[in-house]
Amino acid sequence: MRHGAFGNATALACRECGHQVALGPHYACPECFGPLEIAYDFPAVTRAEIEAGPRNIWRYKALLPVPSDIEESPNMEPGFTRLLKAHNLGATLGIDNLWVKDDSTNPTNSFKDRVVACALSAAREFGSTVFACPSTGNLANAVAAAGARAGIKTVVFIPSDLEQPKQVNSAVYTDSLVAVNGNYDDVNRLASEIAGEEEGWAFVNVNVRPYYAEGSKTLGYEIAEQLGWRLPDQIVIPVASGSQLTKVHKAFQELISLGLVEDKPYKVYGAQATGCSPVSVAYKAGVDAIRPVKPATIAKSLAIGNPADGVYVLDICRETGGSVEDITDEEVRAAIVLLARTEGIFTETAGGTTVGVLKKLVESGALDPTLETVVINTGHGLKTLDAVAGSVGPAATIDPSYAAFTRTEIV
Amino acid sequence: MRHGAFGNATALACRECGHQVALGPHYACPECFGPLEIAYDFPAVTRAEIEAGPRNIWRYKALLPVPSDIEESPNMEPGFTRLLKAHNLGATLGIDNLWVKDDSTNPTNSFKDRVVACALSAAREFGSTVFACPSTGNLANAVAAAGARAGIKTVVFIPSDLEQPKQVNSAVYTDSLVAVNGNYDDVNRLASEIAGEEEGWAFVNVNVRPYYAEGSKTLGYEIAEQLGWRLPDQIVIPVASGSQLTKVHKAFQELISLGLVEDKPYKVYGAQATGCSPVSVAYKAGVDAIRPVKPATIAKSLAIGNPADGVYVLDICRETGGSVEDITDEEVRAAIVLLARTEGIFTETAGGTTVGVLKKLVESGALDPTLETVVINTGHGLKTLDAVAGSVGPAATIDPSYAAFTRTEIV
Ligand SMILES: Cc1ncc(COP(=O)(O)O)c(C=O)c1O
Ligand SMILES: Cc1ncc(COP(=O)(O)O)c(C=O)c1O
Ligand SMILES: [Zn+2]
Ligand SMILES: [Zn+2]
Repeated sequence: MRHGAFGNATALACRECGHQVALGPHYACPECFGPLEIAYDFPAVTRAEIEAGPRNIWRYKALLPVPSDIEESPNMEPGFTRLLKAHNLGATLGIDNLWVKDDSTNPTNSFKDRVVACALSAAREFGSTVFACPSTGNLANAVAAAGARAGIKTVVFIPSDLEQPKQVNSAVYTDSLVAVNGNYDDVNRLASEIAGEEEGWAFVNVNVRPYYAEGSKTLGYEIAEQLGWRLPDQIVIPVASGSQLTKVHKAFQELISLGLVEDKPYKVYGAQATGCSPVSVAYKAGVDAIRPVKPATIAKSLAIGNPADGVYVLDICRETGGSVEDITDEEVRAAIVLLARTEGIFTETAGGTTVGVLKKLVESGALDPTLETVVINTGHGLKTLDAVAGSVGPAATIDPSYAAFTRTEIV
Repeated sequence: MRHGAFGNATALACRECGHQVALGPHYACPECFGPLEIAYDFPAVTRAEIEAGPRNIWRYKALLPVPSDIEESPNMEPGFTRLLKAHNLGATLGIDNLWVKDDSTNPTNSFKDRVVACALSAAREFGSTVFACPSTGNLANAVAAAGARAGIKTVVFIPSDLEQPKQVNSAVYTDSLVAVNGNYDDVNRLASEIAGEEEGWAFVNVNVRPYYAEGSKTLGYEIAEQLGWRLPDQIVIPVASGSQLTKVHKAFQELISLGLVEDKPYKVYGAQATGCSPVSVAYKAGVDAIRPVKPATIAKSLAIGNPADGVYVLDICRETGGSVEDITDEEVRAAIVLLARTEGIFTETAGGTTVGVLKKLVESGALDPTLETVVINTGHGLKTLDAVAGSVGPAATIDPSYAAFTRTEIV
């Protein structure tokens, strides 16, 4: 490992017991099996230094476990996606001051490009020879693309019954797509087995997960910077494993302690689909433990029945005065169309879940519509076309003549 | 019309005879029916002013026919997409210094968001009540999304036999999608008829085309700025109507005359698919007139058989020392996979055409591989999945066990 291979990161620290181990391809605490997280010793970092950086996540490299020359290694250059003022959606929902952070315009059209870029850096510094993941969709796309551009051998494992479009969207980048006869849990288990047996394999969401997860912090940094170095009053974030929500909160806390934004309260809300809502169920029951579920929802990218960071999501949402909410698949579909028709953003089912939960939170009074609010769109509707294919279509079919046109009720 | 509604634009000037008319929703010269283009009186514009602007096309607002408060009207905020150093593709093709300008990460995943944003501004300033277009794909997506976000009535006309995914990707944004029984030419003719008959309709690519077309200049501005305020030695651009190529050249010329980049020679190359290559055919025949063709290619977004700006493309490519080339559908498919596997960019058939033509130009010796080269990727592979669905897929299908994995030939 090079000197400075992980920037200002100093160690891996257990989130449960605080035990520290040296930076390496580890993810579980040797003492208590708790999840390991990156610990840092940050220098003074100024807004001007960040603003002078590249227009992608590497402008925040001082706050990530990456080397200071990270821009020079071929990578996807993700991030710094649009933060759009959502006038129409705000007016429709009755929210005065609403923003959409739109990660559907990332290189492979989901927020996964952020986390994968950090995992790739770690894999490089560890001298890994294979870059890999188990996945059903967005992660597979992001890993296969980043690996191709980095010129590292890349192997992506998917369930063999995955829809053909999702297979194509990964296979186009790599000739090492492996279909596994089984469901996602089977694929995931196989990945852990390979990670344990084979030397030099970096599974982004398994043995380099601590590095990978830090990538989601950049969503939080960007939102604050794009608001003019301010934190919003409240934010709604989708929850699968719960990693993203946890890391956005961590990012806000870091910005406060570095003096890059003013300290102020903000509320964090988690969004799930009812068909896979173990965190929302625990939140509503007022309990601390999360009971795993078997997912049954169209929001497949959020369908993690046993979320690794679920308990931390509960803590954060409760502590900050937010909450966790869930909506039905019908509400997910309706919210996809709502976001498209109000803001011109075509989101996937994960974004439908988040926008739909925002709507439900306002309607139930759980979210104060007078406060400045951010909602995160994490993925692209082109990847989950079927979710709305049945509900939208031509208003009229006419013959190609002006006379036929004037008979329609279009305007 | 507001004072300053079109920024530094002063008139519409005929590209053929130079006759000028006042700025308005016109597109054909009243004297000779030549195409009208925007004329400007530019003030001094500095790099610093541009760099201080927003991270989207509006940083160049002083050079576009838009008002100086353009950022304040809801719009898609397109542009400032990645310019990626293409190390692997360059090495594969033997080009020393190659860049990909990647417009697949625009809001609706093609360069059309740029032109539509300029058309929308014009429609607003003219007080148009309906925002419309005839289209088969990318333009429909861009218009429907931009119209939704702008809160203007939007009507999109498509051929009724269009693939369902493309219909969904427009219908999700608007309840006024009109399917027309006929082919694209029929739809186009109907649009011109409606534009002539109805008050207040702004058809982006018909009666507000001069404003619309200027949006493509931003591709040229961005490339120069992202290279550090320098022009490349050569650039490869896809050609449908030929508007984009013409406008990128115009942008480079403007930057030179404004003193924003150093004056230097550069070569412009046009890319077509053989199944619709009227400009390439004319180039190779050494003639000035373009003979319309009936398109038959998988590169549907480039399938304009009678390109409005084809003769200007010929002029520019010949004058600058570039050329126009075309490739077969098989070469288009192969180039899509080549770009994905080398740079992690999944392009549509238009980008496959452009990258494949680049490859052919190097191989034939028509393009000097020692010069700094830019290739433009204008669209996203998720919209034309079928082009590669038959040629990529899993390398192996295995049972979910480590033993089964070790029997594969994956690594
Ligand atoms: C589009 C999308 N949004 C959100 C998430 C949630 O991520 P996390 O597991 O960090 O909660 C995922 C995870 O796969 C995703 O694909
Ligand atoms: C993806 C894509 N690339 C390139 C073009 C070419 O544009 P032009 O008509 O300006 O030549 C188009 C036009 O529709 C397109 O959709
Ligand atoms: Zn521990
Ligand atoms: Zn004229």
